[in-house]
Amino acid sequence: MPKAEQQGITVKKAADTAEWYSQLVIKSELADYSAVRGCLVIRPYGYAIWQAIMDYLNARLKLLNVQNAYFPLLIPEHFFQKEAKHAEGFRLEVAWVESKDDKAKYAIRPTSETVIYDAYARWVRSWRDLPLRLNQWVNILRWEVKDVKPFIRSREFLWQEGHCIYEDEAGCDADALIYLNEYRKLCEELLAVPVLLGMKTEKEKFAGALRTYTMEAFMPDGKALQMGTSHNLGQGFAKAFGIKYVGKDEKEHVPWQNSWGVSTRLIGGMAMLHGDDKGLVLPPKIAPIQLVIIPIIFEESKQLVLKAAQSLAKELAEFRIHADLRDEYSAGWKFNAWELKGVPLRVEIGPKDIAQQQVVLVRRDTGKREQVKRGELKKRVQAALEEIQQEMLMQARKRLQANIAKAAAWQEFLKIIKGNKIALAPFCGREECEGRIKDETGGVSSRAIPFEQPKKIGKCVKCGSDGKFMVWFSNNY
Amino acid sequence: MPKAEQQGITVKKAADTAEWYSQLVIKSELADYSAVRGCLVIRPYGYAIWQAIMDYLNARLKLLNVQNAYFPLLIPEHFFQKEAKHAEGFRLEVAWVESKDDKAKYAIRPTSETVIYDAYARWVRSWRDLPLRLNQWVNILRWEVKDVKPFIRSREFLWQEGHCIYEDEAGCDADALIYLNEYRKLCEELLAVPVLLGMKTEKEKFAGALRTYTMEAFMPDGKALQMGTSHNLGQGFAKAFGIKYVGKDEKEHVPWQNSWGVSTRLIGGMAMLHGDDKGLVLPPKIAPIQLVIIPIIFEESKQLVLKAAQSLAKELAEFRIHADLRDEYSAGWKFNAWELKGVPLRVEIGPKDIAQQQVVLVRRDTGKREQVKRGELKKRVQAALEEIQQEMLMQARKRLQANIAKAAAWQEFLKIIKGNKIALAPFCGREECEGRIKDETGGVSSRAIPFEQPKKIGKCVKCGSDGKFMVWFSNNY
Repeated sequence: MPKAEQQGITVKKAADTAEWYSQLVIKSELADYSAVRGCLVIRPYGYAIWQAIMDYLNARLKLLNVQNAYFPLLIPEHFFQKEAKHAEGFRLEVAWVESKDDKAKYAIRPTSETVIYDAYARWVRSWRDLPLRLNQWVNILRWEVKDVKPFIRSREFLWQEGHCIYEDEAGCDADALIYLNEYRKLCEELLAVPVLLGMKTEKEKFAGALRTYTMEAFMPDGKALQMGTSHNLGQGFAKAFGIKYVGKDEKEHVPWQNSWGVSTRLIGGMAMLHGDDKGLVLPPKIAPIQLVIIPIIFEESKQLVLKAAQSLAKELAEFRIHADLRDEYSAGWKFNAWELKGVPLRVEIGPKDIAQQQVVLVRRDTGKREQVKRGELKKRVQAALEEIQQEMLMQARKRLQANIAKAAAWQEFLKIIKGNKIALAPFCGREECEGRIKDETGGVSSRAIPFEQPKKIGKCVKCGSDGKFMVWFSNNY
Repeated sequence: MPKAEQQGITVKKAADTAEWYSQLVIKSELADYSAVRGCLVIRPYGYAIWQAIMDYLNARLKLLNVQNAYFPLLIPEHFFQKEAKHAEGFRLEVAWVESKDDKAKYAIRPTSETVIYDAYARWVRSWRDLPLRLNQWVNILRWEVKDVKPFIRSREFLWQEGHCIYEDEAGCDADALIYLNEYRKLCEELLAVPVLLGMKTEKEKFAGALRTYTMEAFMPDGKALQMGTSHNLGQGFAKAFGIKYVGKDEKEHVPWQNSWGVSTRLIGGMAMLHGDDKGLVLPPKIAPIQLVIIPIIFEESKQLVLKAAQSLAKELAEFRIHADLRDEYSAGWKFNAWELKGVPLRVEIGPKDIAQQQVVLVRRDTGKREQVKRGELKKRVQAALEEIQQEMLMQARKRLQANIAKAAAWQEFLKIIKGNKIALAPFCGREECEGRIKDETGGVSSRAIPFEQPKKIGKCVKCGSDGKFMVWFSNNY
């Protein structure tokens, strides 16, 4: 028997976002816990979303002359010691494997800068070899994860990591920003997730980077979620790994590098942002199923209705469609099940609809119902999917904007944070000062330095010295 | 300056196949060695081939209702002990990671039966959940690899592994054979690699399987290469992991399972089979570049010819095309470079060709040159690519057939093997007898029991007892 009583999410999103989110991901079958502590199974429904993200980004990266490759899972221990800050940054997160034959120690990759740049040192000889733009789609392991949250934070996750190398700083930095902008488009156009772009402060930048550019989303519980980063690595790794090239001037130079990545965390951010008390709400462009047909069955008209549902499925085959013709579940049970899975549109068809040559179309995001004539259905579905996609982004963007408030003074800053919002505040930029903000708030950190800055900054919200730039601060995952 | 002198392969394929193959893979830039012993870098040219294999197989698997998912890299130690034969089979190959927090030991997956079936035990409840057909594309690590050969044998490799579960034996076994047949089509239609299909003997079957079906290719040095397997796992894993379902009869049953996989080894087999002394020879359907345009440049007509080459590239943009307009290399140097990379067709265009409104088309597989009128070029390229694809398979199939010989007696068997061929011989099927064959020949093993068997088998080629079936024997990788 169907376990109807277990089907729905048993807590409200607003009441207990953490528990709601866990139930959301597990019950909608995006993912499942595994027997390995801190590691998840990505189930087919979740993996289909990841596949769509990969397909989208691969097509974009091809246009940007980035090629895919694959580098080893294992990284020799001594590679980590070459770039001191990088090594320190990942010291606690690395899982080690000891070789049986030569007693060498290998890290399971927590990121692949070192193993890739060792290869680049062999491959790059001349300015003709540059820029070299590679990307890989791989699994990553980071051990020190205490508080597992499916997709948001787990020991193992899937990601892409791009690693490019250039003759000079200008080309390197320009591309780093281009990749960040691709991530923004992915979030906004595909996932309907509005994001904030900016630069990380010294304290928050990537271990070994010159500058880290970041893309941040803002979750309904008042916490920011870092959704993607692009690092201008400068020349530090190149020097550490001995990467050099002979320039057009026939002299030897040290190249510039960037690296950039997004992960399966994108799925979690999207699910948490859009989901409601009934379950997932998926934007049509990313939804594995865009449209579910549910026949309204009465015993006397059953065959007629099932047949009509099947012919509807054929008629709408250009969309990602599923007809739920199962006998053993009621229409109401099916409504709940597909709402839990976040399918953007539901088509209901019963004997009355057949008689009137219409169907009922129900939107998942708003719950709005409308009757649509059979002859206009295909066009209406197409338009409705586009409307949903656009409106989901627009609504989310409004909420994001409403959640940002300017703070000129410390008390104001604390009030904004307490109200689960993002504080945009003048900041001196010093690591020590940022440390104090974190300590005194129990965890608030800078999210990013917005690219657009006012002419006059004002005094640092914490220490009162001259502010260097305005910064977004908030709690975060 | 281009390192022209290092460019080509320095040994003949027939003289030293092993050294030739290593140079082939490295110099064509399919792959590179890494700083991690036994692990390779798959370079963009090799990864593009893997991507095409993934795309092909994903499209086929979708039609067969197989969905993609992702299961953890790490497998708890105690999972391996649940299925005794499976544990013993992988005992020496597993790399272990020790957890920092709970002292648990985890294997890096050498294959994922155990971690997947642990999840199936939670997911499968009723006959309604079956068949459950999942697949994952992942990296695999098997430690005990001494003799590394890029793509053919390395510690880490990429593969897909399908894991399906059924109500009964018939459905399970039928699907196992369907997947094997998909692998055959992939090899023949995409890679132009003819294969032999059959069942493994008791000695050679997968650790924990009831029956292993296999697909074998035959390399030019007289060794077989296992290119894919599909296992009917019976009910052993289901019993070990406690997977049960309630049938339509409302009673509890133990389901049947199969698992099946192909790996990046496919790339190696294809490269070794088709390559020649000049380098790779890629079948058009899998070639990352199908067509390279090389302008024949003389100083006085340089601009004219470069322009014509560019407009050719536009005209032929529906193919995977590259125009090599580099200034610093001669046409002859480029011919060699693109032959090394196995591009199926070369288009040469020089001032004389422009005057005569024609180009020269050169086939990589046969070296055949032909002049083609500009107006007919697109049609001719299309036709030539199809011809090459078909003829490469046909030629390879002829060579395979010519390399199989029947052996009724032991001396005849030895002579066939010594001649670097496959012996098709009557065999008693006993593990002990197969062990003796291996010992006395220094490594010959059974490759497969062909699906089609004669009515009368004759006496076992080794022990003289009644033969159970005809078996293909050979050396192998």
